[in-house]
Amino acid sequence: MASIFTKIINREIPGHIVAEDENYIAFLDIMPLVKGHVLVVPKQEVDYIFDLKPEVLSGLHLFAQQVAKAIDKTIKCTRVGVAVIGLEVPHVHVHLVPLRSIDDINFNRPKLKLSKDELSEIAETIKSGF
Amino acid sequence: MASIFTKIINREIPGHIVAEDENYIAFLDIMPLVKGHVLVVPKQEVDYIFDLKPEVLSGLHLFAQQVAKAIDKTIKCTRVGVAVIGLEVPHVHVHLVPLRSIDDINFNRPKLKLSKDELSEIAETIKSGF
Repeated sequence: MASIFTKIINREIPGHIVAEDENYIAFLDIMPLVKGHVLVVPKQEVDYIFDLKPEVLSGLHLFAQQVAKAIDKTIKCTRVGVAVIGLEVPHVHVHLVPLRSIDDINFNRPKLKLSKDELSEIAETIKSGF
Repeated sequence: MASIFTKIINREIPGHIVAEDENYIAFLDIMPLVKGHVLVVPKQEVDYIFDLKPEVLSGLHLFAQQVAKAIDKTIKCTRVGVAVIGLEVPHVHVHLVPLRSIDDINFNRPKLKLSKDELSEIAETIKSGF
């Protein structure tokens, strides 16, 4: 069965996409830790990041670097943090989280609830940073 | 001033090193979240991961992949999680954290206090996985 991320890639369900190329996509986490929390995903559906072929892993992080630079330019933060956990959705995803304190990347904290309009606005803001 | 990680690289202070090549090094975090928590560091002293040159960023993650595979083979865990925060030591470091639950990668939780002997034993265990 296609993962929820594959469904976003295939436009079967909506996503707040901020960047995309042939092999990778980046969209907003809809249950963000902070505003501007983005997921970077390889289009190939692989469960575990360290099972990716080296060239795919490398490409994923280079794509993420471009997204992180756009977040840095557009979202107020000290820097962009990175996390890969993968205990839930079985499709590799790199969390990019705009940080002001270490608690901003604590996955146990309550997630923000943002409206579709707020998410769309954040996605547009980040897209303006490319 | 050389970062604490550069001092480990230069053998000015001891580190529980698990892997090293010309450009990268991996050693145990001495204040680990869980047993087997490793830091992967580029030898070049750069503060912010997204300021690394693309080829250095890419090489860092490929090196980390080899270390993560060794952790997966030798430390009991569901998978190896990844985090880059960087609000403390101003020298890029990728945390590799053997995960059994999401709380294992919560940086707010109390760190383990392990003896040098325990750390040495864990380092030897991980080295056996290469």
